[in-house]
Amino acid sequence: VSVSVTLPARSAAYEVLVERGALGRLPALLRGAVAAHRWAVIADSNVAALHGNAAITTLRAAGVDATLLTFPAGESAKTRDTWGALSDAMLGAGMGRDCAVLALGGGVTTDLAAFVAATYLRGVPVVLAPTSLLAMVDAAIGGKTGVDVPAGKNLVGAFHQPRLVVADPAVLDTLPVGVFVEGLAEAVKHAAVADGAHFEWIAAEARTIGQRRPRTVDALIRRSVEIKAAIVSGDPLENGRRAVLNFGHTIAHALERLSGYAVPHGHAVSIGCVVEAALGEAAGVTAAGTAARIAGVSAALGLPVALPPDFTADALLGAAAGDKKSRAGTLRFALLQRIGSAARAADGGWTHALEPAAVAAALHQAPHPAEYS
Amino acid sequence: VSVSVTLPARSAAYEVLVERGALGRLPALLRGAVAAHRWAVIADSNVAALHGNAAITTLRAAGVDATLLTFPAGESAKTRDTWGALSDAMLGAGMGRDCAVLALGGGVTTDLAAFVAATYLRGVPVVLAPTSLLAMVDAAIGGKTGVDVPAGKNLVGAFHQPRLVVADPAVLDTLPVGVFVEGLAEAVKHAAVADGAHFEWIAAEARTIGQRRPRTVDALIRRSVEIKAAIVSGDPLENGRRAVLNFGHTIAHALERLSGYAVPHGHAVSIGCVVEAALGEAAGVTAAGTAARIAGVSAALGLPVALPPDFTADALLGAAAGDKKSRAGTLRFALLQRIGSAARAADGGWTHALEPAAVAAALHQAPHPAEYS
Repeated sequence: VSVSVTLPARSAAYEVLVERGALGRLPALLRGAVAAHRWAVIADSNVAALHGNAAITTLRAAGVDATLLTFPAGESAKTRDTWGALSDAMLGAGMGRDCAVLALGGGVTTDLAAFVAATYLRGVPVVLAPTSLLAMVDAAIGGKTGVDVPAGKNLVGAFHQPRLVVADPAVLDTLPVGVFVEGLAEAVKHAAVADGAHFEWIAAEARTIGQRRPRTVDALIRRSVEIKAAIVSGDPLENGRRAVLNFGHTIAHALERLSGYAVPHGHAVSIGCVVEAALGEAAGVTAAGTAARIAGVSAALGLPVALPPDFTADALLGAAAGDKKSRAGTLRFALLQRIGSAARAADGGWTHALEPAAVAAALHQAPHPAEYS
Repeated sequence: VSVSVTLPARSAAYEVLVERGALGRLPALLRGAVAAHRWAVIADSNVAALHGNAAITTLRAAGVDATLLTFPAGESAKTRDTWGALSDAMLGAGMGRDCAVLALGGGVTTDLAAFVAATYLRGVPVVLAPTSLLAMVDAAIGGKTGVDVPAGKNLVGAFHQPRLVVADPAVLDTLPVGVFVEGLAEAVKHAAVADGAHFEWIAAEARTIGQRRPRTVDALIRRSVEIKAAIVSGDPLENGRRAVLNFGHTIAHALERLSGYAVPHGHAVSIGCVVEAALGEAAGVTAAGTAARIAGVSAALGLPVALPPDFTADALLGAAAGDKKSRAGTLRFALLQRIGSAARAADGGWTHALEPAAVAAALHQAPHPAEYS
C-alpha cells in the first residue's frame, strides 16, 4: 500500500531595496515585511558598534521589540558553534515562532544569521541588511545560507529566502578601501556572465567607482542586484542556470582553501574569473581575449587578477576536487561564451566538466602578475 | 529603487510505502525515488546491527554505492554535535551534491539524518526507512527534521520533505514490547483528531494490536499514515490545520522536559492527550467524557494515561511556557471538539490560547492513576 503526500505549490517574492538612508526607516520596513512580535538583530562585534546599536535604538524608539545578539567579527566565526550559540541565545531570550531575525552586516553575517533563522524552530523569517558591497550585490540575494566547516566553506547550510533585503549604500562610505574594492569582484562577475553593456559601463566608470561617487556606486549596486535577482528568480535552488553565478568560483574556492582563507573571497573571485576565462579559452568554449579583458577591468578597479606565484596547479586541482560543484569525480566549471554571456554545456547544463589534465595544462599557462600589472 | 526576486511555485509529492518485506527491495526503491550516485545510510548503533549491515549488503549487491554511518543509539545522541559529526563524515567520504541520505531507524534517526540531509551542501535528498512504529506512523511523515538542544527537544531543525518513505512492518516483529506500545500513542492521537471510526476500530482491536497480528498492525499503520499524510498535504509548514497534530503535545513536551526526558515520547503523548482532552472539557471546547474515553482505550493498549503523581501543575505550566507553540506569552493547545474531530479556535486557527490560571485549575483536577487502572 502506498499513500501519497502532496505538497502544494507555493510561490514567493521579496524585494531588494537599494536606497541611501534606508536604514533610518528600518522600523517601517521591518513592519511592512514581517508580522513578528520580536526581532533578533544579529551583527558581528564591529558592525554592532558601527550600526547595530543605532539600529536597536531606532527600532525601540518606534516600539519594535528588538534584541541585539553579537558574535566575533571575521570569517573564522562563521561556524556551527557560533550558529549554535546564537540559536541558544534566542531560545534563552524566550523567542517563539512569532520572532524574526534581522541580519546586519557583511556576507559572513548574512549567511550565518540567515542560517540561524532557517533552522530556528524549523524556520523563522529573516530580513537582511547587508553593510558591505559584497553582501549587497551578492551574498544577501538568493537565499543561500550556511556556515564553514573544517572541510570547506559553506558546506553546511540551507536555502532560506529573506522576506526583504535592505541595501543602504550610505553605509559603504565608512568601509575600508580594501573591503570596498573586494566587493567589486562579484559585480564584475555579474556583468561578465549576464550583461556585456554593464561590463563596459564598469570599465568606463572604474575611476568614479574607486572614488565611491554615490550616484555611480548606487547604479553599480542596482544593476548588479537586478542581474542576480533575475537569475535567482528563475532557479532558486540552483538546479540549472543559477550555476552561471559560480563563474570564477571553482578556482576561487580552491584558492581560499589552499591559503587557509588568508586570501579574501573577493580577491579569490577576481583571480578565479580571470583563470576560468582562460580555462574556457583553452577549452575552446570562451572567446579569445576574454581573460585579458576581464583582467584589465578588474585590475583597473584595484583587484588582483593573477594566481599568486606560490600556488601550484596540482595543489589547486586537489583543492578544487573537494568543491560542491564537483560531481562523480569530475571538475566542473561555470564558463563564459564571451563577456556578457555564459556558455551552455553540451549536456544542456550550465557547468562544464573539464578533464583534470586539461585544467592542469591551462593552469600552467595561467596569467602571472607581470602580464597585467 | 526596489528589485523583485520572485520564486516560482514548486509542487512536490512523495509516497509512503507500507509494505511487509519492502526493505528487501530497497535497491529498486531507492533508484526509483532518487537519481543519486552515492548513498549515506545513517543508522544508530542498535539498528545498524539489526538492519543496517543487511541493508548495505543488499544495496551493494545491487550495485548501489552505499556507505553506512552510525551514531550512538538513544535520544541523547540527537544533538547538534552528532549532526555535525555525520555531516563531516559525509564530507570526509567525499560525497558531493549527487549523494542522498537513507535514514534507517526510529524517530531519533529519521529526524537527525533528515536534518543532516536538509543542511548538507544546502540540501540533498533523503529517503526514510522507519524501523519503529512511532516513526512509521508519525516521525517519518511530514518533513519535520531537527535536533534537541539544551533548551528543549526539536528546537533547531528544518522542514525537508523526504523523497520516499519505506515502512516495512516486518521490522516491528523484533521490537521490544515497550517500544512497540509506545508507538501506539501517536496512532491513537491521529484517530482522536481526525477519524472517530478508526478510533473505535482501535478500541475494538486493542487485543490483536497488542498481539501484533500482522494484518491488524499493517491496517493500523496504513490508516494512521493516511490521516497524517492528508493533514500534512494541506499544510506542509504548519501554518494552519497541521497544528491539530500537536494535540497532547504541549503537555507531552512539558512532561518530557520536566523528567529530563526519562519519560518516553509515546508515554508523554498518551498522557498528554488525556490531560489536554480534560483541559478542553474544562474550557468548554471538548465534549464531556472525551478524556475518559481516550484514557480507556490507551490504557487497554498498555499506555500510561495519567500524570505521574510527582509532577505538579505549576512545574508543568512552567515547562510548557517554553514550548514552540507558545506565542506572545500565552499557552496554546490543539484541542478536540470530540473524538475524531479537532476544535477550531474562535480566531479561526487550530490552537487555543488558554489562561494559565485555567490550565492550572484543570491540571489540579487532572486524572490520577487510580481512575483508569
